[in-house]
Amino acid sequence: MGVSAIVGVGNKCDVDEDDLIEFFGQDPNTKVIAMHVEDIKDGVAFVKAAQKISRQKPIVALKAGATALGERAAFSHTGALAGDDRIYSAAFARAGIVRVSNLEELLDCARSISKMPVPKGENVLIVTGAGGLGVLLADACSRHQLQLMTLEKDLDEAFKKFIPPFGATGNPVDITGGEPPVTYEATIRLALEDDRVDALILGYWHTLVTPPMVFAETVIKAKKAAEAAKAPKPIVAALSGDVEVERAASVLEEHGIPAFPYSSEKAVVVLGALYRWARMAGRIKSHR
Amino acid sequence: MGVSAIVGVGNKCDVDEDDLIEFFGQDPNTKVIAMHVEDIKDGVAFVKAAQKISRQKPIVALKAGATALGERAAFSHTGALAGDDRIYSAAFARAGIVRVSNLEELLDCARSISKMPVPKGENVLIVTGAGGLGVLLADACSRHQLQLMTLEKDLDEAFKKFIPPFGATGNPVDITGGEPPVTYEATIRLALEDDRVDALILGYWHTLVTPPMVFAETVIKAKKAAEAAKAPKPIVAALSGDVEVERAASVLEEHGIPAFPYSSEKAVVVLGALYRWARMAGRIKSHR
Repeated sequence: MGVSAIVGVGNKCDVDEDDLIEFFGQDPNTKVIAMHVEDIKDGVAFVKAAQKISRQKPIVALKAGATALGERAAFSHTGALAGDDRIYSAAFARAGIVRVSNLEELLDCARSISKMPVPKGENVLIVTGAGGLGVLLADACSRHQLQLMTLEKDLDEAFKKFIPPFGATGNPVDITGGEPPVTYEATIRLALEDDRVDALILGYWHTLVTPPMVFAETVIKAKKAAEAAKAPKPIVAALSGDVEVERAASVLEEHGIPAFPYSSEKAVVVLGALYRWARMAGRIKSHR
Repeated sequence: MGVSAIVGVGNKCDVDEDDLIEFFGQDPNTKVIAMHVEDIKDGVAFVKAAQKISRQKPIVALKAGATALGERAAFSHTGALAGDDRIYSAAFARAGIVRVSNLEELLDCARSISKMPVPKGENVLIVTGAGGLGVLLADACSRHQLQLMTLEKDLDEAFKKFIPPFGATGNPVDITGGEPPVTYEATIRLALEDDRVDALILGYWHTLVTPPMVFAETVIKAKKAAEAAKAPKPIVAALSGDVEVERAASVLEEHGIPAFPYSSEKAVVVLGALYRWARMAGRIKSHR
């Protein structure tokens, strides 16, 4: 299931968050620490423990009681004094913790971050089979602090060779909706094998020419071929279409590619979380 | 499938958004209009058409190219001049259109709004089987401009009679995680039959005492009983747990209750969208 342990801290009269961060920081079976927090009682110990661990191991946290209504609810739930939310934001940033805003994001990010390699730099590229989806993914990149790289002329020309004249290069690379598997394979390999591309976002739109399962197999094949020669890069995928895209997404997940059916946002959310962690942990130099 | 028509406008050399709003505004088979928009060429005609229709029929819109990165992508996709996003926000608000921020929200909101009755007022109540989920739902209410009502003493006392002493009333009403179906039924009926409650958010956490399908059946039973005497109210549900919650959510959906597995946010997002529309359409007096 990909879960090394689940701990409910209850009212924390003895063991609390910093003890657990320290413990799971050492645990070889734990790759990512995901936390649901209603309050932190010892802020100094918490930041100190998290700072040390988060440089090696991503910590993702959902802070409940982030709003006035939620704070009141948290107090009646555990007596938590949720406190000013900006203080939590500042403490998490200082501790190198990736903050998420709801339960689904916590689970998606924890699961996905553990699958992906650390990106080498900020150059993100979108390759999409549907122009409209490419626009939505670009919007999502903007909201989640990802940088869409500008393609140098030679790379742009290289993509142009594979796609029809009414497609679009630049970034997103829009291969258009009528393309066979070979076009996906060629463009994905080009992206993965070019050293200037650091991470890849795939947009898939269900077509009869390249059905969902064929798309998934093609991506996996391209990934394997590229990784025979080059270091692995983070890849995420957004899949739109019939229910068949659910199975395609599962297959991609099994091969280390976080993949989300029916969503133009989640793939970008999890890649954004990986980048936020990698920047805070000093793994990549931020251009911002 | 719940879809009356799908229209792709292409490059809009003749028929465009305002024509379609007018047409589907009249169409008795269409209850909600969902739009994916890259640009609007005739803003005045668009706002005029939407203003007329949106008072009777909700219009939900996803504007692509909302960010600088997305705008550039939209231009290379359809030549759309996405324009300053604040102008779109202002135009949508003036037109009574509910704006959403991604594909999933567009689909969730369009589907859910067509299922729910229009709320009579701003009094939203959360009833939850897990205190922590109640806090997350309260946070989401705050973010989506929903008002958690303050319970008057008599109503608070009435809830207290059904829940254990370590539960919490107020709002959220936290019935706690060990309760049998009868507690869900009693508290849900109380909420639906009290005239001061305008809308209900249900938080469910998988337990052996009240498994997912039993929860779903209990909710449906309570809804039917309440609606024999009282006007229907919007109900939404957030379900956490094992895969069984997916089937429970489907059953709830079939009975007019938008229900979302594994998410602490989506139930609130769709109820928030319904309220945004109802306020703009003058169906409820906003307290804000």
